[in-house]
Amino acid sequence: MDNILVSIVMGSDSDLPIMKEASEVLKEFGISHEIDIVSAHRTPEKLFKHAKKAHERGIGVLIAGAGGAAHLPGMLASITPLPVIGVPIKSSNSIDGWDSVLSILQMPNGVPVATVALNGAKNAGLLAVQILSLKDDTLQEKMIEYKESMRDTVIKKSETLKGID
Amino acid sequence: MDNILVSIVMGSDSDLPIMKEASEVLKEFGISHEIDIVSAHRTPEKLFKHAKKAHERGIGVLIAGAGGAAHLPGMLASITPLPVIGVPIKSSNSIDGWDSVLSILQMPNGVPVATVALNGAKNAGLLAVQILSLKDDTLQEKMIEYKESMRDTVIKKSETLKGID
Amino acid sequence: MDNILVSIVMGSDSDLPIMKEASEVLKEFGISHEIDIVSAHRTPEKLFKHAKKAHERGIGVLIAGAGGAAHLPGMLASITPLPVIGVPIKSSNSIDGWDSVLSILQMPNGVPVATVALNGAKNAGLLAVQILSLKDDTLQEKMIEYKESMRDTVIKKSETLKGID
Amino acid sequence: MDNILVSIVMGSDSDLPIMKEASEVLKEFGISHEIDIVSAHRTPEKLFKHAKKAHERGIGVLIAGAGGAAHLPGMLASITPLPVIGVPIKSSNSIDGWDSVLSILQMPNGVPVATVALNGAKNAGLLAVQILSLKDDTLQEKMIEYKESMRDTVIKKSETLKGID
Amino acid sequence: MDNILVSIVMGSDSDLPIMKEASEVLKEFGISHEIDIVSAHRTPEKLFKHAKKAHERGIGVLIAGAGGAAHLPGMLASITPLPVIGVPIKSSNSIDGWDSVLSILQMPNGVPVATVALNGAKNAGLLAVQILSLKDDTLQEKMIEYKESMRDTVIKKSETLKGID
Amino acid sequence: MDNILVSIVMGSDSDLPIMKEASEVLKEFGISHEIDIVSAHRTPEKLFKHAKKAHERGIGVLIAGAGGAAHLPGMLASITPLPVIGVPIKSSNSIDGWDSVLSILQMPNGVPVATVALNGAKNAGLLAVQILSLKDDTLQEKMIEYKESMRDTVIKKSETLKGID
Amino acid sequence: MDNILVSIVMGSDSDLPIMKEASEVLKEFGISHEIDIVSAHRTPEKLFKHAKKAHERGIGVLIAGAGGAAHLPGMLASITPLPVIGVPIKSSNSIDGWDSVLSILQMPNGVPVATVALNGAKNAGLLAVQILSLKDDTLQEKMIEYKESMRDTVIKKSETLKGID
Amino acid sequence: MDNILVSIVMGSDSDLPIMKEASEVLKEFGISHEIDIVSAHRTPEKLFKHAKKAHERGIGVLIAGAGGAAHLPGMLASITPLPVIGVPIKSSNSIDGWDSVLSILQMPNGVPVATVALNGAKNAGLLAVQILSLKDDTLQEKMIEYKESMRDTVIKKSETLKGID
Repeated sequence: MDNILVSIVMGSDSDLPIMKEASEVLKEFGISHEIDIVSAHRTPEKLFKHAKKAHERGIGVLIAGAGGAAHLPGMLASITPLPVIGVPIKSSNSIDGWDSVLSILQMPNGVPVATVALNGAKNAGLLAVQILSLKDDTLQEKMIEYKESMRDTVIKKSETLKGID
Repeated sequence: MDNILVSIVMGSDSDLPIMKEASEVLKEFGISHEIDIVSAHRTPEKLFKHAKKAHERGIGVLIAGAGGAAHLPGMLASITPLPVIGVPIKSSNSIDGWDSVLSILQMPNGVPVATVALNGAKNAGLLAVQILSLKDDTLQEKMIEYKESMRDTVIKKSETLKGID
Repeated sequence: MDNILVSIVMGSDSDLPIMKEASEVLKEFGISHEIDIVSAHRTPEKLFKHAKKAHERGIGVLIAGAGGAAHLPGMLASITPLPVIGVPIKSSNSIDGWDSVLSILQMPNGVPVATVALNGAKNAGLLAVQILSLKDDTLQEKMIEYKESMRDTVIKKSETLKGID
Repeated sequence: MDNILVSIVMGSDSDLPIMKEASEVLKEFGISHEIDIVSAHRTPEKLFKHAKKAHERGIGVLIAGAGGAAHLPGMLASITPLPVIGVPIKSSNSIDGWDSVLSILQMPNGVPVATVALNGAKNAGLLAVQILSLKDDTLQEKMIEYKESMRDTVIKKSETLKGID
Repeated sequence: MDNILVSIVMGSDSDLPIMKEASEVLKEFGISHEIDIVSAHRTPEKLFKHAKKAHERGIGVLIAGAGGAAHLPGMLASITPLPVIGVPIKSSNSIDGWDSVLSILQMPNGVPVATVALNGAKNAGLLAVQILSLKDDTLQEKMIEYKESMRDTVIKKSETLKGID
Repeated sequence: MDNILVSIVMGSDSDLPIMKEASEVLKEFGISHEIDIVSAHRTPEKLFKHAKKAHERGIGVLIAGAGGAAHLPGMLASITPLPVIGVPIKSSNSIDGWDSVLSILQMPNGVPVATVALNGAKNAGLLAVQILSLKDDTLQEKMIEYKESMRDTVIKKSETLKGID
Repeated sequence: MDNILVSIVMGSDSDLPIMKEASEVLKEFGISHEIDIVSAHRTPEKLFKHAKKAHERGIGVLIAGAGGAAHLPGMLASITPLPVIGVPIKSSNSIDGWDSVLSILQMPNGVPVATVALNGAKNAGLLAVQILSLKDDTLQEKMIEYKESMRDTVIKKSETLKGID
Repeated sequence: MDNILVSIVMGSDSDLPIMKEASEVLKEFGISHEIDIVSAHRTPEKLFKHAKKAHERGIGVLIAGAGGAAHLPGMLASITPLPVIGVPIKSSNSIDGWDSVLSILQMPNGVPVATVALNGAKNAGLLAVQILSLKDDTLQEKMIEYKESMRDTVIKKSETLKGID
């Protein structure tokens, strides 16, 4: 599993604090990935090349985060045959995040973007793992363990809470 | 490819006119699938069993549509290790669709739902195809053709428009 | 009145600062209660068991608080025959609280959740008292006194204000 | 169970088509109730008397429906020690129902209203049943049966759907 | 002009920092007024008495400020024949102020509330002056001067800006 | 009372079906008034003249209705010393009425507009009556009677409802 | 003025009934223009070519209309140095038009789109005329006449209204 | 190019920190411009004169920024034949910026305002440059360079990011 399986891109370096959560999840699951800045509005040609070549490079899933009038995830999806996961980001001057949520979610028939919650880059990473686990049984096992570990953390917190109360 | 690869469920039979668009896309791509009603609020035990067994049955992707306080996609995602695609549906008494959009999209960290546009069941079907194409190269080819065919339809309409104008 | 009458649950320990206001109200009215973390998305099986057994354990009212795509109150209500009070919580990354409000409020016909205001855990506690007072006349008396005391506090503040002005 | 246990009021006779769904549920569960028009804005004195006397008349739960700037449920709750269930109604000239939802839901600390979904009068009736079942075990049994019957209806529809597909 | 012409009330003492702006405007125009706390939900009887007696006391205009599910202005208007000016207040736990705006603005036919902007207590005071100037020509003169003075302030700032630039 | 006391203007003749409700109320109360089209955006000079001269003509109250980016009420208020009542109108292509509501309501400090509900021209008329009643005691009497008559209508409907039920 | 000065494009032929209003305005002002379908999501390469070549072809202004997650205007603006006018369109399955409004309006710093009202294609045409009139004095004259003609239409309607009333 | 080509106005000096970004862009492109305060609501006559004379003074484009019920851009547009660029500003007491966005964007047919993003004064400046470049080829060249420079900045940041990762 040497080649890059997931490509994480974001519209601006100001999105990095959010988007690196996707990267951290992929590291945790041992999935090779890249992270880059591709601005739909400032580097449209880079966007085109990135989307055109992704599946030829062996990439399996694209993750794209953007704020405001967020066109990056949808434009990638218009070009690539790969699944694209969109992360709406609440940037400064955003109208409470509604702009990026609606710009990413409300894609027309024919061109889906798998949208996650506002600032939900961690879930974008997990969704990429779930998608890749279709052809990698060990990833599915790890996902089941991940869910068990989340459950155990909550159970532990529950016990701590009862101890205090 | 005999076993069922995609399971489409919906919260109510009133969602069927929307959700069958997902089924039609899957038929078009030759992907075996099932379609059923599973109500998070009226059949919670069926929801649990469905989610628990899906990956053991060889299913690769779950598609779930629901309106209002739409808990079906998120609850499936809480149980299954598989990717879950959520379709917000604008039901009667919905507050303009905002309720189902936000109930499906805004999942907490750890439990993603791949949300598509309001009433976007067709895109849910296409996203399932893109996900399954990760381990089936012929599906990716078909997806590329599908995109070309969409392009050709628009080009044709463009020519018709110019002829009229 | 030794057994537990009200069960307060929340989706995450980050909800505790809000949800303990419900607990404080119940203490003030002398109502035995428990408080626990039950995550619809991270501990779905615990959620099921909790909801299944609540009425058998003699509990009379469930209070559930959650943020974002808040499925906990509605899923409890789908299983238990008891009244469920839902508290929408404005968590971080919430879209101004609209997500939790709509995910809890907009339940489909057949499965009500008694929803209170955003972050309104105190009112959830008071509503539980009002419900329990149906079979405990002393609680109703206390509720009438509580209302009188609120009135007196306002009257006092009114007098202070007039003194200043 | 001869005396009236639930009082259903609404702000205008135009709310009747929605509010009678609450009445129908109560009939189904055999709960004695009344239904009346009490306008917070056109009959404020009637509102006061109604709220003042309800618990003395042996009523256990108030259900109030109103549209627009819906003050009826909250004003009843400010006076009565009983639990008040509020039904937001999407009236003509409503701003998509947001006005009645927020006017009913967002009550200040100290005065809860148990709010149900927009136009959710049926759920208001069911919530009243759940509340009354606290002191009437046969009602809780009926509620469990009601839930089973909802489940069976969905299961049946599921089978019909599979038969067609 | 010795008797009180304007009565300013607010739902909570936390509204005072906003509502005293109305008082300051009235002082500036030399209009006798009172300021008090009247909570629709905590002192409903005081609300009734206040509204019932206002016109008999010679009051000409009521100003009422409230946050959240803001019922105070509308309930006053339901009882008094006097014009009522409503000030929506963005309280803590408000859903961005939408709740108080809609609870005050969206009054049903028959019972108007003259609503001003969110936190717009100053404008409530000015509107009261404009209303009272109908029977007091000197007030209208002062209002014209007030407008001229606002104009002059802007003109002065404009000149300062040009000097800097 | 021969001269015109209330001037009703609207931005477009398409607003007439709504705005004539204000006129009808004024007729009912015997208040002389005029009704005209004054478009802030298409006849800005007429707007200026209208606002400049209104108080000199003896007019006491201005009522202005407009849809979309509704600037008419606010611009009148910027010029006239008289109270201006604004009626937001839900025109075609409006974004659910939010545009006209916010354009009229959210006036800056110094320039109030007395805003009524969406399409609330009837209430604009009633508010004008309440304002004019400050210097006309018979109008206040009529307003009290009007409120009694509203109450009686509701009481009658209440009795009809009980008869049916 | 033989070459094409304005290029009107739209994302789908379903946008034509709205977008041809822009074309009609341009005809009225005698401005040569073209109208075509260019889908950001279905014909991304055509979009690129269109944007790349527009200024070389002598075009002065681009008008682009699109609904839902409307990326066409912003993507054109990312590539062309020309001014781009965006028309948000309320398509079916739109969330009340908010999606297209925010996807077009909320462009990041560096890449403006001149956004007009929802379905405001007529205004897009007029704005193009105003822009082109910078280097064509006769267009500015015509625009002044256009404004006078709008004024005269309103004045005429005003006289008709007075005649009726 | 000695005379003033762009006039930047704002409703209040509190808008200056935002609006000077438009001025800075114009300086960067060497475009002569003025900046001033013109309040629609506090200096309506100045607004009228400013709009009336702008095209006679040789100005080519107006930029107007305002918050809340923002009437300045639309009122300028109602009077001048020039293109008007509107900048919605998120002022204090704004309802999340929705008020200024909708007051500026939703202009009626016949009177366009070229609206940019919330607080998007920089883009207003760039749009003015694009408009002026229609009759000044060197401006278009500079705009192309500006876009290339934005691209280069993103490419550089992309390389820095890869170096870190």
